[in-house]
Amino acid sequence: MQYNVVKNADLIIKKSPYVVQNASKYKNRWHELFKNNNPIHLELGMGRGDSIIHMAMKEPNVNFIGVELYASQIVSAVVQLKRFNLNNLKLICMDAMDIDNVFGREIDTIYLTFSEPWPKPQDEKKRFTSPVYLKKYDKIFKRRKHIILKTDNRGLFAYSLESLSKYWYTFNTVSLNLHKDERHIPNIMTDFEQNYRKEGRTIYYLDAYYED
Amino acid sequence: MQYNVVKNADLIIKKSPYVVQNASKYKNRWHELFKNNNPIHLELGMGRGDSIIHMAMKEPNVNFIGVELYASQIVSAVVQLKRFNLNNLKLICMDAMDIDNVFGREIDTIYLTFSEPWPKPQDEKKRFTSPVYLKKYDKIFKRRKHIILKTDNRGLFAYSLESLSKYWYTFNTVSLNLHKDERHIPNIMTDFEQNYRKEGRTIYYLDAYYED
Repeated sequence: MQYNVVKNADLIIKKSPYVVQNASKYKNRWHELFKNNNPIHLELGMGRGDSIIHMAMKEPNVNFIGVELYASQIVSAVVQLKRFNLNNLKLICMDAMDIDNVFGREIDTIYLTFSEPWPKPQDEKKRFTSPVYLKKYDKIFKRRKHIILKTDNRGLFAYSLESLSKYWYTFNTVSLNLHKDERHIPNIMTDFEQNYRKEGRTIYYLDAYYED
Repeated sequence: MQYNVVKNADLIIKKSPYVVQNASKYKNRWHELFKNNNPIHLELGMGRGDSIIHMAMKEPNVNFIGVELYASQIVSAVVQLKRFNLNNLKLICMDAMDIDNVFGREIDTIYLTFSEPWPKPQDEKKRFTSPVYLKKYDKIFKRRKHIILKTDNRGLFAYSLESLSKYWYTFNTVSLNLHKDERHIPNIMTDFEQNYRKEGRTIYYLDAYYED
């Protein structure tokens, strides 16, 4: 049963104009695909795409690319997107470990939104803020590196603060309770996050950059 | 009434062998006062001294200096200390703003424990992790800078993460809930903090350093 669902997902995805096949052929040429020179923002582990779809609608002058490993997740995004006609959004079904084969130095911002925390020490390298990934990001960021991280996982957030700090990132904004922060922090809340808010769950937020 | 209390405090303090008068005369010569070359750790805003007294007892091979503005607070430390004979602890009644008049490049670690959060934006410069203070610390740290911060104030902690990060500090350890952290983080808990723990209050912890 699970196999059938995934099989259908693959087929649906292939037909969607939002999903890019053989993405590596656009390496260093993503601007050509978008037909403009707007900044490119990438979300890794976009899941069902709620967050990136909202962002793409809100910021038409930014190109968004969502990366997700599971076709069964991307299907949800593709179904939602049938109602819209967004020229600034593309989705890729791939392992985030391969991003440096798919992008050159053409990314402006990376979003990591409610990523898998991988709490076991032996899984550290799978965390999107581990040095393994930070080294990959170095290969795809333009001159300025910029990461926006949002999570409800305390351990992943503390780890990320340490890891990014050791990798010379500077913290523009840190919020230890995004929904109760007195400052105005730009935040797009998905239904998922709205529920977290109702539950009173603590959401952590980080805007980090590195500039030579 | 308040004046009398402070006046008595001043007198009690003057008689204590722990309290250093005219501290600036020891600038660049604190090792002579301690009669050894052990590292010197400084606590700013030590309050009643519970934390620094515990540390001094636990680490006899480190020299501790506690700085506190209010004589009425230092009195509590002095009274406690009558029971002990600690050669590695000195206290100074002074405004922390003057530390660069009192210390040369001779400090190894600065502790900021449950410091005043000064939440209003106009009071930012009074926060012990503001650039105003970080610049002062540059004048008193040996080559390696090392700050240990502990607070229950979420706003102060987020501010400190941003401020220290922008000042090129690296974060060795960040804990977003010290008492529930799965890792072993060395922590000396005063009665004050024990009560916080019982209340389930979140304690934030940061070990930050900067090394050329």
